[in-house]
Amino acid sequence: MSTTTNLAVIPGDGIGPEVTAEALKVLEAAANIEGTASAGLIKFEQTRYDLGAERYLATGEVLPTSVLEEIKGQDAILLGAVGGKPNDPNLPPGILERGLLLKLRFELDHYVNLRPSRLFPGATSPLSPAVLDQGEIDFVVVREGTEGLYVGNGGAMRVGTPHEVATETSMNTAFGVERVVRDAFARAAARPRKKLTLVHKTNVLVNAGSLWWRITQQVAEEFPDVTVDYLHIDAVMIFLATDPARFDVIVTDNIFGDIITDLAAAITGGIGLAASGNINSSREFPSMFEPVHGSAPDIAGQQKADPTAAILSAALLLEHLGRPEAAAAIDAAVLTDLSERGSAPRTTSEVGDAIAARV
Amino acid sequence: MSTTTNLAVIPGDGIGPEVTAEALKVLEAAANIEGTASAGLIKFEQTRYDLGAERYLATGEVLPTSVLEEIKGQDAILLGAVGGKPNDPNLPPGILERGLLLKLRFELDHYVNLRPSRLFPGATSPLSPAVLDQGEIDFVVVREGTEGLYVGNGGAMRVGTPHEVATETSMNTAFGVERVVRDAFARAAARPRKKLTLVHKTNVLVNAGSLWWRITQQVAEEFPDVTVDYLHIDAVMIFLATDPARFDVIVTDNIFGDIITDLAAAITGGIGLAASGNINSSREFPSMFEPVHGSAPDIAGQQKADPTAAILSAALLLEHLGRPEAAAAIDAAVLTDLSERGSAPRTTSEVGDAIAARV
Ligand SMILES: CC(C)[C@H](C(=O)O)[C@@H](O)C(=O)O
Ligand SMILES: CC(C)[C@H](C(=O)O)[C@@H](O)C(=O)O
Repeated sequence: MSTTTNLAVIPGDGIGPEVTAEALKVLEAAANIEGTASAGLIKFEQTRYDLGAERYLATGEVLPTSVLEEIKGQDAILLGAVGGKPNDPNLPPGILERGLLLKLRFELDHYVNLRPSRLFPGATSPLSPAVLDQGEIDFVVVREGTEGLYVGNGGAMRVGTPHEVATETSMNTAFGVERVVRDAFARAAARPRKKLTLVHKTNVLVNAGSLWWRITQQVAEEFPDVTVDYLHIDAVMIFLATDPARFDVIVTDNIFGDIITDLAAAITGGIGLAASGNINSSREFPSMFEPVHGSAPDIAGQQKADPTAAILSAALLLEHLGRPEAAAAIDAAVLTDLSERGSAPRTTSEVGDAIAARV
Repeated sequence: MSTTTNLAVIPGDGIGPEVTAEALKVLEAAANIEGTASAGLIKFEQTRYDLGAERYLATGEVLPTSVLEEIKGQDAILLGAVGGKPNDPNLPPGILERGLLLKLRFELDHYVNLRPSRLFPGATSPLSPAVLDQGEIDFVVVREGTEGLYVGNGGAMRVGTPHEVATETSMNTAFGVERVVRDAFARAAARPRKKLTLVHKTNVLVNAGSLWWRITQQVAEEFPDVTVDYLHIDAVMIFLATDPARFDVIVTDNIFGDIITDLAAAITGGIGLAASGNINSSREFPSMFEPVHGSAPDIAGQQKADPTAAILSAALLLEHLGRPEAAAAIDAAVLTDLSERGSAPRTTSEVGDAIAARV
């Protein structure tokens, strides 16, 4: 038995195409694993979309409506990385981020931005042995993906004058907060430690903070076996640096999640290993899986990029598609590869080959 | 010769009074050092203000107008820490933060929130030797203190219903950004490395980000020997964890500064050592010096708190009052104390005594 999954592939810019090629290689290998009898094999029907800096610079197009509509009809999306050269005068900051990456997250209602952080054996953490000896680092950040400071609700007046005023407004709704908090609780309930930490800045952002706080207390009643904790965003910085093993599931808003997950990636061996899913948990729209890292134009096309984050993102995709065995096979292959990696440099495709062979 | 400085002392709650006592002890010791002939001795005329959780819980008063007016007439302020027990139902989040701490910062126009981060010899960093071997960690964060998400410009509607909407607006003005950016450039120009890193999230917060970016470029022209760099807040997380030696002066907005400085404190040995100044560089109002840490009610009154951050804040106070020799004497005493500290526990006042004796 096999099912067909329509997969949108957006390789993007810089190292995006290179790491995506390896993710697809590993994805195909994992798709050929027999799952449970009821699941069977998966056949991926790929459609490629050449979105990103290159297309924008050549045509002025970021995400044409027709392309967006087509993508909406797919089952899932695999994205490499998007972004041009830093400080390119033809590419103002925000064009691709807001016009493409965030547009996809918002249009496809990716309210769960899922970012697992795990220190794999063999990966090098910048933290000291004394910190690492406190326990295993294995937590998940559930970052809200469709609200907060990311909604583009800002403006400016008297631009360029000494009287300029610029604003950015964080929008938070009970609807938006509740669904992501409930998703985070469900994930916490399914993990051995069953612990959820809400992160905000309730002592300063009293309106949004109060909403997040109250909803977390409410939803907690549905999950009596999950322990709930609260930390201010600044305190989280301290604990991520000094005792990251304390975290299990973190739920937080869009910008705090952005900040936390880069630090989390750094302490677990770098963004070369950090995967993410932009998930529409209600399954109305396709979810999108992408490495946390950017397009790194400085090393593009040189087979220097580590494709592991993209490969782990493919595992998250399989998990989301209801193929936990295939996802676990990738995770296990990455684990073995990492622990045997050593320090000899390998090309991007050598890493992909090695992991695919192990799947 | 001696000059009299009117010093407002706000010991605050929890460990606040204990660490403040030590800071005052060391301040007095340093004040008796002969400075340059023109500076002479300093005589501190102290006035104590019992502001904080205790007063609020007893009287409902946070910062009476008459007290605020009196404080405005002082030359400088030394603050311990403010805050009650966590989750005290009689002390809603934000009451003391917004009514006292932030109120002082805003009313006294403390637009430069100065937070030096330096890994003293003898202090224990949670970072690995490989990271630390890259170079000395010695940077300063200049955090804007009177704008951004801290202005209290938010609101909520349909509170407590499924249709609640809560907002928080970051306010940024050319006036506010320019003065803090100029202050940061001046500090960078006075340091050996002369490097300034602007931190923001220009790719998402395009309005505020563009204002910060343009003003930084403009002010840079006045400081041709300062090298200017830009990083997104998420990228800063990675560099603070993997290569903190790269930073010299960081300038950023209020919330990003809040987040960065706690991580910076963590990697340089913990918030037990992190000092800060809330500075009105134009000297219209008294500046306020306080440790970055909170009131830690769990260890209050037990002589367990480390007063070093409060003592280093007193050094910043002396620096601000134009007494660099006295400030340097405190820094040197702290440095020696730290490098000889070892692991035997000492009481709060033993640490204070040891540092005061060395000044
Ligand atoms: C590129 C940028 C818009 C994006 C974000 O801020 O969400 C990135 O940092 C991320 O974390 O996926
Ligand atoms: C207590 C709180 C309001 C404050 C802030 O957010 O500025 C604190 O975290 C700090 O950094 O001084």
